[in-house]
Amino acid sequence: MPGTSPAAELQAIVRVAHELADISGPVILKHFRKTMPVENKAIGGAFDPVTKADRGAEKAISEALATRFPDHGIVGEEFGTKSGTSPYQWIVDPIDGTRSFIIGSPLWGTLIGVLKDGVPVFGLMDQPFTGERFWSTDKAAYHSVRGGRPARLKTRECTRIEDAVLTTTHPEMFEGPEQQSALSTLKEKARLTRYGGDCYAYCLLASGLIDIIIEPGLKSYDIAALIPIIERAGGVITTWTGGSPASGGNIIATGDARLHEDALAMINKL
Amino acid sequence: MPGTSPAAELQAIVRVAHELADISGPVILKHFRKTMPVENKAIGGAFDPVTKADRGAEKAISEALATRFPDHGIVGEEFGTKSGTSPYQWIVDPIDGTRSFIIGSPLWGTLIGVLKDGVPVFGLMDQPFTGERFWSTDKAAYHSVRGGRPARLKTRECTRIEDAVLTTTHPEMFEGPEQQSALSTLKEKARLTRYGGDCYAYCLLASGLIDIIIEPGLKSYDIAALIPIIERAGGVITTWTGGSPASGGNIIATGDARLHEDALAMINKL
Repeated sequence: MPGTSPAAELQAIVRVAHELADISGPVILKHFRKTMPVENKAIGGAFDPVTKADRGAEKAISEALATRFPDHGIVGEEFGTKSGTSPYQWIVDPIDGTRSFIIGSPLWGTLIGVLKDGVPVFGLMDQPFTGERFWSTDKAAYHSVRGGRPARLKTRECTRIEDAVLTTTHPEMFEGPEQQSALSTLKEKARLTRYGGDCYAYCLLASGLIDIIIEPGLKSYDIAALIPIIERAGGVITTWTGGSPASGGNIIATGDARLHEDALAMINKL
Repeated sequence: MPGTSPAAELQAIVRVAHELADISGPVILKHFRKTMPVENKAIGGAFDPVTKADRGAEKAISEALATRFPDHGIVGEEFGTKSGTSPYQWIVDPIDGTRSFIIGSPLWGTLIGVLKDGVPVFGLMDQPFTGERFWSTDKAAYHSVRGGRPARLKTRECTRIEDAVLTTTHPEMFEGPEQQSALSTLKEKARLTRYGGDCYAYCLLASGLIDIIIEPGLKSYDIAALIPIIERAGGVITTWTGGSPASGGNIIATGDARLHEDALAMINKL
């Protein structure tokens, strides 16, 4: 996009990301809730519905992106990295929450994020079954349901862990005493803990309905698209030591910056 | 309904139950995802969104039911029991899965069940945000999405716990060593375990996507409506000792009768 301003570049990126989600949703839904004989042990293999949906959507997204922004790079879970000549790199995870997908729960989503020189500048989460979409612009984050009017996303004030609603995708993701202690330290004090959610939970945090999410061992493609959504909605997201979350790792997100500071101190026993 | 056959009576019940769900859905959705300052400690009290939605929907359902079947009884979570002069009693839980509702997850539902002389003869689960409805007739169970064509529900074959997908709403519902051992015995062998779901999970079991659900301490209104849906879809649902699940208690449901037999033996250490 030579000769255009960063703001105009971002506008073009937002528009194309919506196009990509319009393309990927139907590809994925063809395979959603297709029951499979349990004797087929190929979950994670080539022929189960979730792998078919994942690969089909990633192929459709990367082909469409190549016609819109041929100079942009793309990183996908299934097909690896294609380098670009521009500073922009797209990070795509067609189905974040594959275990939810497998059991027919709608708590999964398609993640489309964009880094500029390695920094997350845009994110979109699409849930084609519920018809929901969450995304960021340069200054704000939005949510729409089944093509309806976009509503501004705003995190909720919550300064104390004792008042907080905490979620994490699954307690058994936490491995070893250090990770388990980080979860239990927060969980024992939180007002309410629920499990499950993957990317969907981060979008509910951006919506002001969840106050804190803690997860270990995330990949860049699990989280890159969610960072701008959370930050533009007023939340804070870092690693457990307060570093940049863009490369994944152990991640903590809160709706309120004051809770984030306290939670970091608690899990690091400061 | 004097002078009508049991089959015609059931048909009338199915029709009215759909009407009731059409009425309750919009009442509940008005309050869904209304974020609340966390400083308001009234969750479970009179003024939080979930209580407003619960009471509003139960009132709307019981008023509509009184005009359709004035001689039928009704049991609701919020307003207690109204006895009837007919053998039919309706059991209503406007929001099963209040904790999911609170965090904005769509994994909750409106349960409308009917007992005849104490035996579950009909059930319906409505999820107005996703637009899904699951229900039973005298011989089968069905599912529709956003008013689309109803599809027949059928559980999946799965004879061995090692092949099974297991869910339960939350591991901390299991209290004391006996209940915890029942969960861990099954969970350690199952192929995949996910938490969360409430009534939504039972409907996914009826859809052939989950193989086994185990939960302790359910109330009659948590489960009565789900029994005919699971049974008509080909599944088995009982208490942990193999008794009738209609009054609630510790509940185990499977899609395949052979898995149910083995699971009962495992948790009772036979």
